[in-house]
Amino acid sequence: MARLVEVDDAADPRLGDYRDLRDVQLRQSLEAEHGLFLAEGEKVVRRAVEGGYAPRSFLMAPRWLDGLADVLATTDAPCFVVSEQLAEEVTGFHVHRGALASLHRRPLPPVDEVLAGARTVVVLEDIVDHTNVGAVLRSAAALGVDAVLLAPRCADPLYRRAVKVAMGAVFAVPWTRLPDWYDALPRLSETGFTTVALTLSDDAVELEAAVAGLDRVALVLGSEGHGLSPRWEQAADRRAVVPMRAGVDSLNVAAAAAVACYVTARR
Amino acid sequence: MARLVEVDDAADPRLGDYRDLRDVQLRQSLEAEHGLFLAEGEKVVRRAVEGGYAPRSFLMAPRWLDGLADVLATTDAPCFVVSEQLAEEVTGFHVHRGALASLHRRPLPPVDEVLAGARTVVVLEDIVDHTNVGAVLRSAAALGVDAVLLAPRCADPLYRRAVKVAMGAVFAVPWTRLPDWYDALPRLSETGFTTVALTLSDDAVELEAAVAGLDRVALVLGSEGHGLSPRWEQAADRRAVVPMRAGVDSLNVAAAAAVACYVTARR
Repeated sequence: MARLVEVDDAADPRLGDYRDLRDVQLRQSLEAEHGLFLAEGEKVVRRAVEGGYAPRSFLMAPRWLDGLADVLATTDAPCFVVSEQLAEEVTGFHVHRGALASLHRRPLPPVDEVLAGARTVVVLEDIVDHTNVGAVLRSAAALGVDAVLLAPRCADPLYRRAVKVAMGAVFAVPWTRLPDWYDALPRLSETGFTTVALTLSDDAVELEAAVAGLDRVALVLGSEGHGLSPRWEQAADRRAVVPMRAGVDSLNVAAAAAVACYVTARR
Repeated sequence: MARLVEVDDAADPRLGDYRDLRDVQLRQSLEAEHGLFLAEGEKVVRRAVEGGYAPRSFLMAPRWLDGLADVLATTDAPCFVVSEQLAEEVTGFHVHRGALASLHRRPLPPVDEVLAGARTVVVLEDIVDHTNVGAVLRSAAALGVDAVLLAPRCADPLYRRAVKVAMGAVFAVPWTRLPDWYDALPRLSETGFTTVALTLSDDAVELEAAVAGLDRVALVLGSEGHGLSPRWEQAADRRAVVPMRAGVDSLNVAAAAAVACYVTARR
């Protein structure tokens, strides 16, 4: 059972994991240094713990204790019990869903392990926005994708905002980082995947036709602004597009991913 | 040609339209009072003006003047030329894409006018989040939806954040508000649309089957938290679901809308 620890001083050093959650730079260095990430909201906290991530601590107002009692019972990490005002003072914003947890990151699994048995995977190149990474993970989990691979510079799926938007899908879908950017797609092809790049390039065919009848498929999506790098676009086995109305330049990457996952899962 | 007016005082009352863009409550009352809305970024400003919305004024740093010269040439509204620092001071945040415009709202068209000739429409009940409204509009425009109807309490598609996320699609897709909530769906059915509610209800069938062979279709989507109201869920001609992996509770409404628009456009 987690140890309940009442705290009434916002400067208490034990609350360090929860400090200034809106300050992206500060958070990134703090989380990297301590190998932690944050989960926010009862449902997401629960899913993180159930997903096997070990909690460092919890932070919540008293009214959230009951709902998470079964989760707290599984650990002896401290649970800092604070007023909502103090939580706001520490984190820098109003904590809508009330409960926070700080959890230990785990070593990322090797690519081979994540791909074992997978038939449909999504590969993200350099998605910048944590909201988009979270949204893609959520859609991938819902629509039958077996694994997600991230290029070295793709935004962190364990960053609080990504975890929140993914509604915990980041704990459900196997994912890891690709160690190498340049040859990532040829290596996937060698493993038996047909890599299908989503792109607006002139030789792109309709996605439904591109994936029809394929066994193992890796859908490849690029960054919000410029799409895929020329290297990845050209290294992919096929280039495909979600057909769009003339005159509209593009779908948001999260919307394109949702449609692409749906189409590919039903190939 | 817009009149270029250099301004170097953040308190200048002529900049009132651009004040405190992050303060949702203040903005909502200010925009309602003056019947205005804001467009942000060169592309979106351009699309708003090209979409026929009359500018009240523009606000930008000197480096954005050239790119928008042709747009500024079409109007005699003032263009306030300010330093990036002053723009930040007035608006309350760093204006990434540089150019802002304040435009006159227009009276919303009647529902009949928006539906004339439409074969596929999206109907949003009470979507709360401006980002989601914008994302749905963008996907709808890209994926071949002819019109969008909004329930009386759906979030404002002309709110800055929605306009930005929609990348100007709000100026491209015909849309309006439904005057009446309770009988909105039966009235659509009378007009010849089959109303298809996206829901997780027990009698929901797979979306692809639900829309197969239909002529005029109205896809009906509910709010982020609780989905559709019981009234709308029951008033719809059909209830349908985007098939999901067991154990995953839902797609984000914007992702569900993207998939649903894609499937319905290809019926």
